[in-house]
Amino acid sequence: MPYVNIKITKEGNVTREQKKALIEGVTKLIGDVLHKNTKSLVVTIDEVDTDNWGIGGVPVTEIRRAAKEKAAKESESEKGGNVS
Amino acid sequence: MPYVNIKITKEGNVTREQKKALIEGVTKLIGDVLHKNTKSLVVTIDEVDTDNWGIGGVPVTEIRRAAKEKAAKESESEKGGNVS
Amino acid sequence: MPYVNIKITKEGNVTREQKKALIEGVTKLIGDVLHKNTKSLVVTIDEVDTDNWGIGGVPVTEIRRAAKEKAAKESESEKGGNVS
Amino acid sequence: MPYVNIKITKEGNVTREQKKALIEGVTKLIGDVLHKNTKSLVVTIDEVDTDNWGIGGVPVTEIRRAAKEKAAKESESEKGGNVS
Amino acid sequence: MPYVNIKITKEGNVTREQKKALIEGVTKLIGDVLHKNTKSLVVTIDEVDTDNWGIGGVPVTEIRRAAKEKAAKESESEKGGNVS
Amino acid sequence: MPYVNIKITKEGNVTREQKKALIEGVTKLIGDVLHKNTKSLVVTIDEVDTDNWGIGGVPVTEIRRAAKEKAAKESESEKGGNVS
Repeated sequence: MPYVNIKITKEGNVTREQKKALIEGVTKLIGDVLHKNTKSLVVTIDEVDTDNWGIGGVPVTEIRRAAKEKAAKESESEKGGNVS
Repeated sequence: MPYVNIKITKEGNVTREQKKALIEGVTKLIGDVLHKNTKSLVVTIDEVDTDNWGIGGVPVTEIRRAAKEKAAKESESEKGGNVS
Repeated sequence: MPYVNIKITKEGNVTREQKKALIEGVTKLIGDVLHKNTKSLVVTIDEVDTDNWGIGGVPVTEIRRAAKEKAAKESESEKGGNVS
Repeated sequence: MPYVNIKITKEGNVTREQKKALIEGVTKLIGDVLHKNTKSLVVTIDEVDTDNWGIGGVPVTEIRRAAKEKAAKESESEKGGNVS
Repeated sequence: MPYVNIKITKEGNVTREQKKALIEGVTKLIGDVLHKNTKSLVVTIDEVDTDNWGIGGVPVTEIRRAAKEKAAKESESEKGGNVS
Repeated sequence: MPYVNIKITKEGNVTREQKKALIEGVTKLIGDVLHKNTKSLVVTIDEVDTDNWGIGGVPVTEIRRAAKEKAAKESESEKGGNVS
């Protein structure tokens, strides 16, 4: 009988198989933990644009960009390190 | 004053007129049952991809495919029946 | 298959029968409008404290109090009118 | 990063340990399936009164009562069977 | 720790900067009012098609169209007024 | 027109005035950022039991308890430090 809503960021990499695994997994989990019939258990998944999701006041779009820039710099400085 | 959220699967066949009928109907229902002013009653409709909706642990995409295959087989066997 | 969430203010006057009428009514409406099987349609009703609901920036608790005070004043001035 | 909301009926029998198992389980599931950092994954659980939850147009309160009455009748008729 | 969901109509005019301002603003507001650590505060924004949003039983699509027609008529009658 | 839902943990210390400040503040913010009429903007606040809220797979009830125990130990060791 339960109803589950899962919100994730839409980042172009969640496959149909992964969504199926989420639906199957959360349904089994709830059946196991609550000993409930899950025949009519409903799961919905919302995929939210990274511009539309914020953590700690910062849009995920910016968090992702900062992480990329940091990784690029580190990779750059590593190369620099190899040279010297 | 109430707020209503309706989630349905997005299967390409819900028209603007049907959405309007849902908005009108649910607003009238709540006004009638609760005797509330519905001037500021808000209804939102979410259309959810069939990959993103599961029932009883199975994605709706698969439920729909299974139903189609079953219908196709039955139609096939009926034709077979007509022949004999 | 749809899922419906109805949020109303908790003001001590919504009976079990009214909730049942909402559940029945919204289920019938969706079945009629969308021509969907409603056997597994889920409706949940949230009752929200008037302190926890705001419209136009004002808590419903204050909107209700202001309405009562206005009604009381009007009733008072009517009585005054009857005397003169 | 994901956010999960689980709605279940409030039937006086879900323990703190079961809620913890739901929170742990769904967090692990999402980490495993989506290969995401779950450090800030949020899960909230709503417990909904059986009067406020309907399936197929029928309040869960009535579904539960009907199931009990059916079970009682069957138990009764079994006893009757034993007598004869 | 809080979680905030903001639903707005999708009318093609909400920029990435405005979304960022909403995320920043609501996070700061909650930190200021509740004196809570907002490091893991999550905000999600849903943009809803105007066909899928109703107020007082009327789809926003129609409310917008009626407002435009009214504005057009007034502009027309003003011009008429200028002529006479 | 927007609709905002704020979920916070129910920890016995959010006053009616704080809820009012959230309702006022978020309404003003959205009006300022989106240049929208906020006359019918709705805000609802859900207060969620700490057993029913998890972060990173851990119920908030346990996070709070661990923080208290840590604070108590630190206070204890400080006293010990003062003695020596």
